[in-house]
Amino acid sequence: MIKAGIVGGTGYTGVELLRLLATHPEVSVSCITSRSEAGLPVADLYPNLRGHYDLAFSEPDADMLKACDVVFFATPHGVAMRMAPELIAAGVRVVDLSADFRLKDLEVWANWYGMPHESAEWADKAVYGLPEVARDAIREAQLVANPGCYPTAIQLGFLPLVENDLVDPARLIADAKSGASGAGRQGKVGMLHGEVGESFKAYGASGHRHLPEIRQGLSEAAGVSVGVTFVPHLVPMIRGIEATLYAELKDPTDFGRLQDLFEDRFRNEPFVDVMPQGSHPETRSVRGANHCRMALHRQEDSNIVIVSSVIDNLVKGAAGQAVQNMNIMFGLTETQGLDAPAFLP
Amino acid sequence: MIKAGIVGGTGYTGVELLRLLATHPEVSVSCITSRSEAGLPVADLYPNLRGHYDLAFSEPDADMLKACDVVFFATPHGVAMRMAPELIAAGVRVVDLSADFRLKDLEVWANWYGMPHESAEWADKAVYGLPEVARDAIREAQLVANPGCYPTAIQLGFLPLVENDLVDPARLIADAKSGASGAGRQGKVGMLHGEVGESFKAYGASGHRHLPEIRQGLSEAAGVSVGVTFVPHLVPMIRGIEATLYAELKDPTDFGRLQDLFEDRFRNEPFVDVMPQGSHPETRSVRGANHCRMALHRQEDSNIVIVSSVIDNLVKGAAGQAVQNMNIMFGLTETQGLDAPAFLP
Amino acid sequence: MIKAGIVGGTGYTGVELLRLLATHPEVSVSCITSRSEAGLPVADLYPNLRGHYDLAFSEPDADMLKACDVVFFATPHGVAMRMAPELIAAGVRVVDLSADFRLKDLEVWANWYGMPHESAEWADKAVYGLPEVARDAIREAQLVANPGCYPTAIQLGFLPLVENDLVDPARLIADAKSGASGAGRQGKVGMLHGEVGESFKAYGASGHRHLPEIRQGLSEAAGVSVGVTFVPHLVPMIRGIEATLYAELKDPTDFGRLQDLFEDRFRNEPFVDVMPQGSHPETRSVRGANHCRMALHRQEDSNIVIVSSVIDNLVKGAAGQAVQNMNIMFGLTETQGLDAPAFLP
Amino acid sequence: MIKAGIVGGTGYTGVELLRLLATHPEVSVSCITSRSEAGLPVADLYPNLRGHYDLAFSEPDADMLKACDVVFFATPHGVAMRMAPELIAAGVRVVDLSADFRLKDLEVWANWYGMPHESAEWADKAVYGLPEVARDAIREAQLVANPGCYPTAIQLGFLPLVENDLVDPARLIADAKSGASGAGRQGKVGMLHGEVGESFKAYGASGHRHLPEIRQGLSEAAGVSVGVTFVPHLVPMIRGIEATLYAELKDPTDFGRLQDLFEDRFRNEPFVDVMPQGSHPETRSVRGANHCRMALHRQEDSNIVIVSSVIDNLVKGAAGQAVQNMNIMFGLTETQGLDAPAFLP
Repeated sequence: MIKAGIVGGTGYTGVELLRLLATHPEVSVSCITSRSEAGLPVADLYPNLRGHYDLAFSEPDADMLKACDVVFFATPHGVAMRMAPELIAAGVRVVDLSADFRLKDLEVWANWYGMPHESAEWADKAVYGLPEVARDAIREAQLVANPGCYPTAIQLGFLPLVENDLVDPARLIADAKSGASGAGRQGKVGMLHGEVGESFKAYGASGHRHLPEIRQGLSEAAGVSVGVTFVPHLVPMIRGIEATLYAELKDPTDFGRLQDLFEDRFRNEPFVDVMPQGSHPETRSVRGANHCRMALHRQEDSNIVIVSSVIDNLVKGAAGQAVQNMNIMFGLTETQGLDAPAFLP
Repeated sequence: MIKAGIVGGTGYTGVELLRLLATHPEVSVSCITSRSEAGLPVADLYPNLRGHYDLAFSEPDADMLKACDVVFFATPHGVAMRMAPELIAAGVRVVDLSADFRLKDLEVWANWYGMPHESAEWADKAVYGLPEVARDAIREAQLVANPGCYPTAIQLGFLPLVENDLVDPARLIADAKSGASGAGRQGKVGMLHGEVGESFKAYGASGHRHLPEIRQGLSEAAGVSVGVTFVPHLVPMIRGIEATLYAELKDPTDFGRLQDLFEDRFRNEPFVDVMPQGSHPETRSVRGANHCRMALHRQEDSNIVIVSSVIDNLVKGAAGQAVQNMNIMFGLTETQGLDAPAFLP
Repeated sequence: MIKAGIVGGTGYTGVELLRLLATHPEVSVSCITSRSEAGLPVADLYPNLRGHYDLAFSEPDADMLKACDVVFFATPHGVAMRMAPELIAAGVRVVDLSADFRLKDLEVWANWYGMPHESAEWADKAVYGLPEVARDAIREAQLVANPGCYPTAIQLGFLPLVENDLVDPARLIADAKSGASGAGRQGKVGMLHGEVGESFKAYGASGHRHLPEIRQGLSEAAGVSVGVTFVPHLVPMIRGIEATLYAELKDPTDFGRLQDLFEDRFRNEPFVDVMPQGSHPETRSVRGANHCRMALHRQEDSNIVIVSSVIDNLVKGAAGQAVQNMNIMFGLTETQGLDAPAFLP
Repeated sequence: MIKAGIVGGTGYTGVELLRLLATHPEVSVSCITSRSEAGLPVADLYPNLRGHYDLAFSEPDADMLKACDVVFFATPHGVAMRMAPELIAAGVRVVDLSADFRLKDLEVWANWYGMPHESAEWADKAVYGLPEVARDAIREAQLVANPGCYPTAIQLGFLPLVENDLVDPARLIADAKSGASGAGRQGKVGMLHGEVGESFKAYGASGHRHLPEIRQGLSEAAGVSVGVTFVPHLVPMIRGIEATLYAELKDPTDFGRLQDLFEDRFRNEPFVDVMPQGSHPETRSVRGANHCRMALHRQEDSNIVIVSSVIDNLVKGAAGQAVQNMNIMFGLTETQGLDAPAFLP
């Protein structure tokens, strides 16, 4: 059994890791830390885990964490970059669900996250953990930077287009929508049910932290620097991201072969589902599951290709992808612990 | 008092008309028709109207409707084009909330609505009732084609850009999201709470009936034929539309003067609110009210201008705009019956 | 015009007072205070009020408030009992929406609210503002204690039964359910959308602050001390309370005359609607309106009478009832500012 | 591998059976029938099952069903009573999720379901499948009548009280609340998102089909005929039932030992969780899981004991309990296929 530790386990990604790992046949969670809730049984905070875990939250303790095979960071940014290097040095493999190691340009990182980066070495060595792009590197990685939720849905949908140089790389638009769990479990007025319920809005429309991450990934896939406009929105639901992607075909006659191209690109990917052209993926079709489902559209004879891509922000957009990465890192079957169908209705 | 009739009053636009007209000081509703519910008091179907209306639904009766000063059609498409001409001939002024008279090109109409149009004369004479564009014509109109919900939110947001030739008219993108009441009050499985709740999806992404209406309105405003991509989405809430609009500035340095331009364009419009640049309009800020609120965004030095525009689909997107049009047609103060603040939280 | 002030206007009852008073023909809001938001225009916090109010939040200032004809307290408990007496002394009439003056027994008050009461004089003189019970006293009152939301829905439903000594006063059960806005607008983790959405639970089942208020009101109506069990629940919606009330008929044959009894009791009440027996009042039928709707049920030959009673917790359960009380106090028509239909769908 | 068939698989209990059985290590679904959708792949109707099932819906075919080891009926009432006897005769074991075999008194059944019962023999022989009461009989049963959703939550909560003769059996009150999936997947106007969202109401308050089922089960447990008042309510959420139960203690001093009594009663039950006294079980704590969680309350010195009991109506209230019953019938570990934690948030 792989011994796993979780740092910062009181948030939604923490509980989702616990939910997924509860049925993982090769992993046992040996510790979960939280400064604020140290001593509290996890099942007292999250009653869905009653009967599944005897574990209590503990103060973060380096020795305890070093005794793990793998440690997940489910912390706000700024924590993993300080704690992970010491654990890695002790032989622990790390999956960081925060943003600390996602960007290679540390000036950009510092601008968006409002603090200097403290581990240039590991920002450089970290593997950006999108398995559909970097599976081989993940296998060997000591530190995996687990992608953000929006960047996962958006990159997967654009990948076949930019990898094959089919669209104008300067004119990518990603209009994305997320459930409220993406904002975490802090007591912010703006995220109250009374504020979020029965309303819809854009936010971060002038610039959002996931923009440089999306740009970095797509530029690498395209081989040129891409121009991408990204507007996130808040949906009055708990889980799920839908991204509607717009790109301009260099040659509009290419549209006819896109469906095959997408299906080929993801044929061997256990968690990417290209639906029949003209389908409309629903976020509930992936709720609780690690899948990304997508479908292609075009309007009349337009040269705009439209991709609708959905994930569960807490699963493929966070904890599920982290488990997938762990599976790859430890040579397990990639789908272990991730094989239950999504939850509908 | 203006005597108003409503044809087809059992749907959500019907009950919303009744709600708004209940407090209108110059109008009294003298009849409301429904074949299926004839005889039923409206307050039995809509208990929020208990104590406000003694009226019962009646069979559609031409004489009764001809005795009205104004008749609202809140019917499926295909009804108004058959019934309205006779009423107009009898001197009744008509506001059609359905799609029957919105498109000038009747071949396009027939393609999207699946039946031939039966009143070429009135399709031609009808005034497209977007007061911010056609107030003077509405004042004199015998027949007003009340705009669709998406087209209202989208046209208002694009108008200042296309009227002033500031953006590439071939590259307009409108990513729009609507609450479930937009689908009406038919018992369709796909609109059950169990299907719509806690999920988000695009629909009609390969083509939606509102696309030609949007194209017609923006082309007229632009003075050239525009290319617009329009993707609607279904939000797990009841009311509200948000449209995020993307357009490419011909001269990126123009962005700095757009805020003033938008404010000037709508300065005298009682129901369009240009919020400070960088704001994020929420649909709840217009819930129950006839306002469209919008705000401008740009990401870094991009040449893409982003407009977020919100309305209540049942008010400014249907019944409220119909009352606004009636106010204009009858020389009333344009805001009468429409002056209550939106409903928040 | 009556000059109104609002103390503590940033919460949901504050914005609801502003919404209702915006269309009240006899009242103008001259000041609204908030320590935390002093200086901020109310329309910046509540964009639904853009165009309706130029007012900004101000520091609470005694002179400013003394210049008002009426002051509403929309504050946490403990504020009004300290500030109201000075205003009353200056001739201002006060409607307190908090719990400070609702209970006559100040020991009970101190136990439930965790602090000693500081104005025994005004706790005694205050009129409990349920107009359906105390209209005449309200008319003359200098200080009205506006009832709690649950107590309003529950007392109104039980009143005809206990006033007429028809049920066992020791065996009253009130199972009540409320939308999330009842918990206010504080940034509490437990009230996040991610916590409240798609879930339902009881809370305060071992005892809730509204229990002594309900008991006091019903005991007075019954003329004997009543035994009432009250369990509140949290519904994943924003507004609305439904209370299902259970009482044991002393004489089961009385059930047949209850409908008439209820209708007679409330015949002249503008805001209480006794629906036909067997109806199921929906909270949305009163959303945004000041009405309480109720209906009676019995199962087979049971001697249990069931009353289902609904209100909007922010209107008849708070701001609307406060406006109703103000209307009574100032000799206005009782329905002024409160005559718009509820908001459905 | 046990070969399972599902009759009537297009509804919510059908898809939930498929979801649960997808990961069950001892069962494979060999056929699923639907007259209306025959020929359609199940994954086309339920995209969450893409990649999990190759199966298509088929016309109900007796030979195909007779080749199964177990057949689940997820049909409207009236179907199983006609089809099940023939399957049983062929050696198939049946779990009926409909109401056909739940009531022993067939006159009562006929009254509530509006048709005569057609299989008195199997109504008599069927085992009412509440494992916490009838595990041994279920083990041997050829036909299990899977309990209704409300009756499951309500009986489990009352059981320890009535089995031990601690409460007045004539005065049981069950105030229960359910998500919208309980109404099934028919296109009824009343279950549209626009009707159910943001509203709460009682329904069936004068009598509901689950009342005789609750009465039958509790009377058997009590050894005397019980009097129970049951009012269901509709919650604007998809899944989950909460039942708040009120009973009058014969001896109020007994309250102190109830917590131990409840814990003892359910100590060996894998799916019943007695939470610490004073807890408030949330429906989300059992969402997607087969658990019933409950907690006890008392208000001050009242002699009313309050039990709050929650289940997922589609799992412990339908498909999960059916799988649990199948596990028992076939000598499997009772928790197989049912061991994933609930889904929170």
